[in-house]
Amino acid sequence: MAYSRLWDTEKLPLVASDDRIIATDVIATHDVPPFNRSPYDGFAIFSEDTKHASQNNPVRLKVVDAIGAGHVASCRVNSGTAIRIMTGAKIPDGADAVIMLELVKEMTDQENSYIEIKRSIKKDENISFQGEDTQQGKLLVKQGTKITPGIVAILATFGYHLVSVYKKPVVGILSTGTELLDVHEDLQPGKIRNSNAYMIAAQVRSMGAEVKLYQHKEDDLDSLYQNVKECLEETDMVITTGGVSVGDYDYLPAIYEKLEAEVLFNKIAMRPGSVTTVAVHEGKWLFGLSGNPSACFVGAELFVRPVILSGMKMNKPHCAVTKAILASDFPKANPFTRFVRATLSEDCDQKVVTPAGLDKSSSVSSLIEANCLIVLPGGTRGWAKGSEVAVLSWHGEGSEWPWNHPLFSKSSVTKTAEKQP
Amino acid sequence: MAYSRLWDTEKLPLVASDDRIIATDVIATHDVPPFNRSPYDGFAIFSEDTKHASQNNPVRLKVVDAIGAGHVASCRVNSGTAIRIMTGAKIPDGADAVIMLELVKEMTDQENSYIEIKRSIKKDENISFQGEDTQQGKLLVKQGTKITPGIVAILATFGYHLVSVYKKPVVGILSTGTELLDVHEDLQPGKIRNSNAYMIAAQVRSMGAEVKLYQHKEDDLDSLYQNVKECLEETDMVITTGGVSVGDYDYLPAIYEKLEAEVLFNKIAMRPGSVTTVAVHEGKWLFGLSGNPSACFVGAELFVRPVILSGMKMNKPHCAVTKAILASDFPKANPFTRFVRATLSEDCDQKVVTPAGLDKSSSVSSLIEANCLIVLPGGTRGWAKGSEVAVLSWHGEGSEWPWNHPLFSKSSVTKTAEKQP
Repeated sequence: MAYSRLWDTEKLPLVASDDRIIATDVIATHDVPPFNRSPYDGFAIFSEDTKHASQNNPVRLKVVDAIGAGHVASCRVNSGTAIRIMTGAKIPDGADAVIMLELVKEMTDQENSYIEIKRSIKKDENISFQGEDTQQGKLLVKQGTKITPGIVAILATFGYHLVSVYKKPVVGILSTGTELLDVHEDLQPGKIRNSNAYMIAAQVRSMGAEVKLYQHKEDDLDSLYQNVKECLEETDMVITTGGVSVGDYDYLPAIYEKLEAEVLFNKIAMRPGSVTTVAVHEGKWLFGLSGNPSACFVGAELFVRPVILSGMKMNKPHCAVTKAILASDFPKANPFTRFVRATLSEDCDQKVVTPAGLDKSSSVSSLIEANCLIVLPGGTRGWAKGSEVAVLSWHGEGSEWPWNHPLFSKSSVTKTAEKQP
Repeated sequence: MAYSRLWDTEKLPLVASDDRIIATDVIATHDVPPFNRSPYDGFAIFSEDTKHASQNNPVRLKVVDAIGAGHVASCRVNSGTAIRIMTGAKIPDGADAVIMLELVKEMTDQENSYIEIKRSIKKDENISFQGEDTQQGKLLVKQGTKITPGIVAILATFGYHLVSVYKKPVVGILSTGTELLDVHEDLQPGKIRNSNAYMIAAQVRSMGAEVKLYQHKEDDLDSLYQNVKECLEETDMVITTGGVSVGDYDYLPAIYEKLEAEVLFNKIAMRPGSVTTVAVHEGKWLFGLSGNPSACFVGAELFVRPVILSGMKMNKPHCAVTKAILASDFPKANPFTRFVRATLSEDCDQKVVTPAGLDKSSSVSSLIEANCLIVLPGGTRGWAKGSEVAVLSWHGEGSEWPWNHPLFSKSSVTKTAEKQP
């Protein structure tokens, strides 16, 4: 996180700012409501006039004006008079209360309109006071906040027809691997269609970035080096998929070296994705993800997400952590911490999490239903159904830093609930 | 819901289909993996050859070919031979197991390469079998499902470079009210900026629709009628805000009558939003929401959302319902069911919900933090801190039909937890 940097900002029309991250604080530039106003259709009156009003002693007031919302009265409310007022209209000078339309009797003679009131109305009754909702100068929305419909309402209220937001960083996704066909190509013996690039592209777009797709088809060092360089020049960060394992044709470590990129790590004690490499070159990030779909998926959520979001000053750039009950045995032990794609649901009062589909790093079908990752700290044995486990979710608000959650520590490996039949 | 209809469909490039609702079932058109493949870098062998292999009795095999991912072997693996194979490559004919690179000793003489194996390898070891992830013909994604990154991966795998999705319906939002300034205008006495239209627009876009904004500034029946008619002709459904109350300038009921629209309801026992009108005219929906921000907000989530989403065959078109503990007293009793904008969070093991900001239907500030609605069934008394309440959320998956949740019934009004200091 120490290497993260802020993205540029741009101004967008309010109607195009949905879900973007605001780059300025929003401060109330006036009170809300901006004036005392009527919350109902009724009559603005001088409350003192109704002090002795009752069923047997109705008070009669002369109606001297009528104002709709958006209009202002042409005169004051003096004792003995009233002004007809619509919801949202400004309380006329002199009036200190509103009586609802339904509670008065309206009458007219040849020249004038009158109302009759049969109850006492207190001072300030039915007035929405200037500033009661929000006072001028109040900090309403902080820089780094996602623009929701509610925030759009706030921005409109205060006249932000242009909104300053963080630009979407451009993420280059470079697929390597001679086995990859593009999505429109027919299957060929020994080859598969490239699904990782499209999947990561969708993940990265959902994080608020833009994507440029690159495809490298040859397995030779020089042309791949040129490709990575070009990709770095044309984008704000680069994700490569494939070519980071230990096989004969894995050139990425050599390429990082040739670029003189600073490699932050090139192995990580986790499954899937142990062969993930993360490097920084001239302030730009390089993520080398394995070619396995689940490793790609997990790598994007764990490593790419916080870099994109912290660049927009979001204070919760990581996946959110919650706890849930494991719905089925997970017998496979592993010395490394596992991130298992899973489905989180609510069952009666508790959250329940079920591993999704085939648990192999090459599995594609497990991606259909998965809405979270189960985190299983490494250890010498598997996990029993009923265990309490930590779950990372890319939906909702995120977290500041999930990695110190107590369920992530190895000690909790021993905590297994009673096995159910 | 009986009046809902399906929107049209369109074909989009895969990279433009994020978050859209798929309009066809997706069926696996081939097995995944499409062929037996190697999950590791190693050597494809004939397992029988290693039957008696051990530390003291190493077996030596001649390496007859080397294949990278995407390539196919030029010959078979016969007894006594092996083929070097990279992760993802197709298992050559004759081979029935793979031994990992790290477990063999490689050697060459003048003419040939050999490997030495010091353990027995079982038949089928280290082979990812054709169809083990997904079998041809399997229904993977149902029509009416939102396209997530995982589903993008599936679509890419099966060659969907064009994806059939539901078209975004066009929602006309017609603001009425002479008090409304547009967002770029300076404040004027008695007037406020139109925040409702922009807010509802953002809500409706987040539901997957497009928006056309209309503004009506005069308060006369004929021009408003013309405006509503025009708006109906140019869009798939119309939301009006304001002008549906009981005041002097509320023309919408008359307009529905003049249109000969079928009014489904024009009052509803809820707060805010009791003056909501919903009508259907020639198959198009008309939603008449009050001019109050919170009534608009709630009306869009409760009434507009299911119409937009069921038109895309989503099987959970309504807000999702969950339960939570009320974090503060809500003393105001009301005979009607209330929908209180609130903030849902997780506190230790339970969900906690707190009313957001000023609880007035005119409040704008309460929209900033609100991420859900508390549902408080009507009754003769308020609600105590600690009560278990139902909460509606527009985040996540939604629900089929939330309205039969037990917490929505009036009887639960009496269920109040002990008051805490």
